[in-house]
Amino acid sequence: MESRGWQRKDLLGLEELSKKEIEIILENARSFKEISEREIKKVPTLRGKTVGLLFFEPSTRTKLSFELSAKRLSADTLSFSSASSSIVKGESLLDTIKNIEAMRVDLVVIRSSSSGAVFQIAQQVSMGVINAGDGCHEHPTQGLLDLFTIYQKKGRIEGLKVCIVGDIAHSRVARSDIYGLKKLNAEVVVCGPATLIPSQIEKLGVRVSYSLEEALKDADVLNILRIQKERGVDCQIPSWREYRQQFGITRERLKRARKDILIMHPGPINRGVEIDSEIADLSSSILEQVNNGLAVRMAIIYLLANR
Amino acid sequence: MESRGWQRKDLLGLEELSKKEIEIILENARSFKEISEREIKKVPTLRGKTVGLLFFEPSTRTKLSFELSAKRLSADTLSFSSASSSIVKGESLLDTIKNIEAMRVDLVVIRSSSSGAVFQIAQQVSMGVINAGDGCHEHPTQGLLDLFTIYQKKGRIEGLKVCIVGDIAHSRVARSDIYGLKKLNAEVVVCGPATLIPSQIEKLGVRVSYSLEEALKDADVLNILRIQKERGVDCQIPSWREYRQQFGITRERLKRARKDILIMHPGPINRGVEIDSEIADLSSSILEQVNNGLAVRMAIIYLLANR
Amino acid sequence: MESRGWQRKDLLGLEELSKKEIEIILENARSFKEISEREIKKVPTLRGKTVGLLFFEPSTRTKLSFELSAKRLSADTLSFSSASSSIVKGESLLDTIKNIEAMRVDLVVIRSSSSGAVFQIAQQVSMGVINAGDGCHEHPTQGLLDLFTIYQKKGRIEGLKVCIVGDIAHSRVARSDIYGLKKLNAEVVVCGPATLIPSQIEKLGVRVSYSLEEALKDADVLNILRIQKERGVDCQIPSWREYRQQFGITRERLKRARKDILIMHPGPINRGVEIDSEIADLSSSILEQVNNGLAVRMAIIYLLANR
Repeated sequence: MESRGWQRKDLLGLEELSKKEIEIILENARSFKEISEREIKKVPTLRGKTVGLLFFEPSTRTKLSFELSAKRLSADTLSFSSASSSIVKGESLLDTIKNIEAMRVDLVVIRSSSSGAVFQIAQQVSMGVINAGDGCHEHPTQGLLDLFTIYQKKGRIEGLKVCIVGDIAHSRVARSDIYGLKKLNAEVVVCGPATLIPSQIEKLGVRVSYSLEEALKDADVLNILRIQKERGVDCQIPSWREYRQQFGITRERLKRARKDILIMHPGPINRGVEIDSEIADLSSSILEQVNNGLAVRMAIIYLLANR
Repeated sequence: MESRGWQRKDLLGLEELSKKEIEIILENARSFKEISEREIKKVPTLRGKTVGLLFFEPSTRTKLSFELSAKRLSADTLSFSSASSSIVKGESLLDTIKNIEAMRVDLVVIRSSSSGAVFQIAQQVSMGVINAGDGCHEHPTQGLLDLFTIYQKKGRIEGLKVCIVGDIAHSRVARSDIYGLKKLNAEVVVCGPATLIPSQIEKLGVRVSYSLEEALKDADVLNILRIQKERGVDCQIPSWREYRQQFGITRERLKRARKDILIMHPGPINRGVEIDSEIADLSSSILEQVNNGLAVRMAIIYLLANR
Repeated sequence: MESRGWQRKDLLGLEELSKKEIEIILENARSFKEISEREIKKVPTLRGKTVGLLFFEPSTRTKLSFELSAKRLSADTLSFSSASSSIVKGESLLDTIKNIEAMRVDLVVIRSSSSGAVFQIAQQVSMGVINAGDGCHEHPTQGLLDLFTIYQKKGRIEGLKVCIVGDIAHSRVARSDIYGLKKLNAEVVVCGPATLIPSQIEKLGVRVSYSLEEALKDADVLNILRIQKERGVDCQIPSWREYRQQFGITRERLKRARKDILIMHPGPINRGVEIDSEIADLSSSILEQVNNGLAVRMAIIYLLANR
């Protein structure tokens, strides 16, 4: 592990990271991935450090991934959700976090439904802050694990053609992916129903396509976004069946794609909607992404705690 | 500790275990029980291993017992319940568990309200799976701790007469107990209201009695099942008072039983319904069972993780 | 660290502690505070011990503080709340705790909405019990961290004039503070609306004032209590605005107080009600109290576990 060149206190988004910083994270992730394959999957690196996990939205993989990452570095973890906390007594999120900081917690991982909330918090505390997803804004560790998965599978990112399909408008994953991919010089096409593509998205350096067939042509990587029922997306698409007909990833549709196309999805998946079960189970790298998420999060916690 | 002779990846039920396998677990439990009585109740055996705790039904003692067992072996634990997880986003249980496996969790402990769900999951993952209770099917660690308690208290199981009283129909504890006791050559009588005795129960090798007095005669062990209000059992018994009159364990009723009868209950108890407070507090082995549960679960986690 | 002179199994309230016992806790807290400022904030003192955390009311800082205190002493922690436990199956609190004791948990920390419940439990178990707040009765670790903060900031407690303002009637913090301050020979004035001052409070050795101006005169320490909306206090005060006008701590009001007055609040704060934001953020010791809470709780856990 090597933290030279890393200066930041926080990991808030890929928009603000330099190409060099992204590369430092990916290099460290490679070392940490090796640890997860050992018999004893634990290193004493962060013994005596504390990582707080503050998830204000439901989460399985992201929360568990951060918790396990911290534990495998021998850090202690402290979890809490809004339901069991003083936030039910009307305390502000910032006051809660200031309290946690006063307990000499070294890093906090925050998931919030409010875009930008994590940025504001980071400016007001001296401990490190990791954004685990803020509203429709960014989900930088997902973006980084996607980059790491592409890098591990394809050997490079520069020059690859990456197609992101689905609800671009509400997806913090899409935004983080786009920032990262563009910084590493990939070509990005976003594809989905017109109602789910933000009007100014080309400003991020991506091409827009409303035809999945066209977008998939020559793509090296296909990243399928989740239709987020829990964000009320239902009303912006005609029906689930129609969505699947136009943008669902099926075996039939993939026949016209490259044979070595890398298929990714941030999970949790809606089987038979944006992705068919046989593609998810047999041809995708979804579980590899989950495994890589651990390595990437270990790298980030390590870098921020050893700054 | 000695894991020779243990081959299984999972602990799913006592129905499938051989007599030899049960004996390996009980022998290991004896060693681990000794550790729990030390000043420093922890061994480094499973350092760097991770045990996931997935409880989809309310639980105090079983969840805490597994969590503490794992921690006393120096394993890391990861908990989650359905309420805080992606299952609220519609993810399937199997997808959730596949994700956990992708994070290189070594063992998962699952409690589910659905009979058989844990078996199906175990077949689809390569990590070890422990059934912590599935619907009305089996609760193998409770069965094993009951066997261990009888063994510790009576010095043997073979040839003992064991009476199980209560709601046999809905009790996963009863089923696991019966499988285990029969394999170790105990004699088993089940007793309860006709509405709560399954019609084919004799096929498991037990005798049925509808009279508690008759069933208790010469019994070496009395295992009292909980009336599970939360499973809607109320409508199958005339009234709580009448249940107590016919099947509740009172001082009066025990006068005609053997003086050295071992009284057990898997908990949580309904005081004044299936068991009177003075029996529970002064004459039962209920808390000894809880203590033994820790030893048995340490043994099982140890055996599965060192396979 | 030094536990000589400490005999008690439990920490239930400041009412029962001697001056000497309070001093032992404060001396140990000073040592533990130093550990929290180290790079590696962890000592192996309680390796192999288990601390159970049973919070039956919402809590952020107290629960996290206890959890972190235990972890920094290298103890294992076990958490549970009523929502996820067998208490939803109707099990009594005492039965739940007897079960936890049977698992050889060394200490339990209990928060309960019922005044006196923690005392009753402590009498029935042989493991150590720490009261983390019971109804309107006592909150001894808050009382002790308040004493510790005064001691750290003022160098002494004897002879200081301490003003406690707010809802004295419902505040377990006020009661614990008063017991501790009087034992250490401070002078205490309580101040608030007549509806929120208990009629017999002078029996505890405090003076009552209904005028904040008068009470603040010459005060060395001002402890501002939280208006606990969640306890239905709203109906006992005319309006929040009126409360602020009479008893809220504002810059204006503090102009007539001593310049070196120490301003404390147990949190969580209601900004603009009992305390103005600028006072809370710029002139108070609130976060210092949170930090001291960790040291005090480490001291208490250490003393009880090493008895």
